[in-house]
Amino acid sequence: VSARVTLLTDFGTRDGYVAAVKGVIAAIAPESIIDDAAHDIGFGDVREAAWALARYWRRYPPGTVHVCVVDPGVGSARRALALHAERRFFVGPDNGVFTHVLSDADFQAVSLENSTFHGGDISATFHGRDVFAPVAAHLARGVSLDELGPAVTDPVRFEVARPHREGGVVHGEVVHIDRFGNLITNIPAQLIADGARVGIDGHDLGTVRRTYADAARGDALALIGSDGMLEVAVRDGRMNGAVGTRVRVTQSD
Amino acid sequence: VSARVTLLTDFGTRDGYVAAVKGVIAAIAPESIIDDAAHDIGFGDVREAAWALARYWRRYPPGTVHVCVVDPGVGSARRALALHAERRFFVGPDNGVFTHVLSDADFQAVSLENSTFHGGDISATFHGRDVFAPVAAHLARGVSLDELGPAVTDPVRFEVARPHREGGVVHGEVVHIDRFGNLITNIPAQLIADGARVGIDGHDLGTVRRTYADAARGDALALIGSDGMLEVAVRDGRMNGAVGTRVRVTQSD
Amino acid sequence: VSARVTLLTDFGTRDGYVAAVKGVIAAIAPESIIDDAAHDIGFGDVREAAWALARYWRRYPPGTVHVCVVDPGVGSARRALALHAERRFFVGPDNGVFTHVLSDADFQAVSLENSTFHGGDISATFHGRDVFAPVAAHLARGVSLDELGPAVTDPVRFEVARPHREGGVVHGEVVHIDRFGNLITNIPAQLIADGARVGIDGHDLGTVRRTYADAARGDALALIGSDGMLEVAVRDGRMNGAVGTRVRVTQSD
Repeated sequence: VSARVTLLTDFGTRDGYVAAVKGVIAAIAPESIIDDAAHDIGFGDVREAAWALARYWRRYPPGTVHVCVVDPGVGSARRALALHAERRFFVGPDNGVFTHVLSDADFQAVSLENSTFHGGDISATFHGRDVFAPVAAHLARGVSLDELGPAVTDPVRFEVARPHREGGVVHGEVVHIDRFGNLITNIPAQLIADGARVGIDGHDLGTVRRTYADAARGDALALIGSDGMLEVAVRDGRMNGAVGTRVRVTQSD
Repeated sequence: VSARVTLLTDFGTRDGYVAAVKGVIAAIAPESIIDDAAHDIGFGDVREAAWALARYWRRYPPGTVHVCVVDPGVGSARRALALHAERRFFVGPDNGVFTHVLSDADFQAVSLENSTFHGGDISATFHGRDVFAPVAAHLARGVSLDELGPAVTDPVRFEVARPHREGGVVHGEVVHIDRFGNLITNIPAQLIADGARVGIDGHDLGTVRRTYADAARGDALALIGSDGMLEVAVRDGRMNGAVGTRVRVTQSD
Repeated sequence: VSARVTLLTDFGTRDGYVAAVKGVIAAIAPESIIDDAAHDIGFGDVREAAWALARYWRRYPPGTVHVCVVDPGVGSARRALALHAERRFFVGPDNGVFTHVLSDADFQAVSLENSTFHGGDISATFHGRDVFAPVAAHLARGVSLDELGPAVTDPVRFEVARPHREGGVVHGEVVHIDRFGNLITNIPAQLIADGARVGIDGHDLGTVRRTYADAARGDALALIGSDGMLEVAVRDGRMNGAVGTRVRVTQSD
């Protein structure tokens, strides 16, 4: 049995690009199960892709190969990477899409320079199909990372906003807005003392609640989201705000 | 071989929530094939989800586990359920999403109170990942329903509009509008006599036709849809109307 | 192990039609892995579907069954087909959706008239579920093409615009616009001499570049796309134009 392969792209599905990637994987690793993660990441939105990947990579079992192709620089000099972290594999461009994996886990990385494991005829604009898919399939079949190319010690990471504390106040910001209109912040639960109050944009949300149902319909609330970070939401609604909106958590006296 | 698992949610895909659910299932039941049913159900639209599920659950083979997570009340006191009906399994919140299954088949139900089969660390807002996914994976591996928690005899069902007959007229209504703009009614084929005429909103559509091609392009028609219910459609177009629009079928004399 | 099955439709996912198709396949061929190609093809847009299919069918391994159900004429007299080309199978309506397969490969075709391999109760409006899915599943399990019905030698093809040459100029047109806003033309790389200049709508794009990164951000460029055809694109942007927009390639002197 081959390992599972997941796909995360900004290709959309209707042009057939995603299916071409799946076909290449199936041709090399016929037993592999390919799970769609998402194909509607914003065009070239590497941060959004990195965020989505952070949510699921560890949930999959060891041996899983996570393919992430949000690749606005395809065909330029950017490197192509494979990573190994906590027994999962990752394949994609070296543009920051693996930022959260690299921050959260020990990793090994290689630059995909051994063309033995690439497709036969590499296009300049579709490395998802011609480089990343065949490499992923070979990893799923058990090829080892160091056969794929030379080690890389400095994969690209983008800057991640960090919360900071001033006196009794933790200052953070919104880093992601999900489909439900929840604002996800960069403030982890561990920084929030019991009884602390949450404010956003001058608006006081009171103390942290446990779940949406602890607010009245249409009311805003703060809660700890499913990945352990402070979120701001409206029960049965959408919270106003943007990535970068400031959030503060004030310790009670 | 593990059983097949299907997923129906309102999560969208781009936040990575769906992939997290798949990863949890794959970690517990590595051989399971996970089929996406839909992830673009309207936010919290339990009726739409119930409708979609009604269309496919019996088409899958015995042993299939159908996971349905449209769960606006997550974290509240609503129960979490697993069902068994006609040798298929169902996992999801007790909010009416299984209404059509419960109406159409004999079933057993349990409340998911045995935390042995849940994830290690249950969030208050993502039971799809922390409760329903692990339970589904255990069912796919052969765990029996009664190990999951105590029996439930009164799972939540929403009210379903029923057609009624007055003299020679059957009165029904539109209960779903599909992507093609077809209006699907609650009037089953069995209630429609040969030669009966269909009217919607004061507009006479004539007798029931066999298929779209039996009308001229752009013309409205009535026909029996693929699940045996009366539909109103426009050939190569979209029919005006809304859920709740009244439809009448008048017996010919 | 059953073969892989791919699905290409215009059904959308939220009505549950796609899941019904998958369920039928899984019931007949329980081991088959079903890969979604796309379900968001424009309503009845047979050309778009044909284009998507052209991109991926050969990438999948021999034995794969490609199901394509964009079928505005369902229930009319149009034939239902299965094809065999280069050891892949194809199932769908005889409406031109296989045009590019038929042009690019030797094929055998049959009309799906042997109801032994259909579902038990055929609706007039959902052959995807009642005819194409069961046939696909039987092909995945090894049923041979000629058991499915009588041979067909004239499957429907739509007209495909071809480029032509006048003196030193190749005249072609845009045949597809992808999600990224790239205009894909009908001019293959082989017709483009070194140093030739590309013009679109009276606008000179200069010579053919290798990849997007060879233009400045926001600048238009011409390049050879990943399927070997001339494309017109804007780096990190979307090119204006429509299907049918004329493109010319002028040989340098």
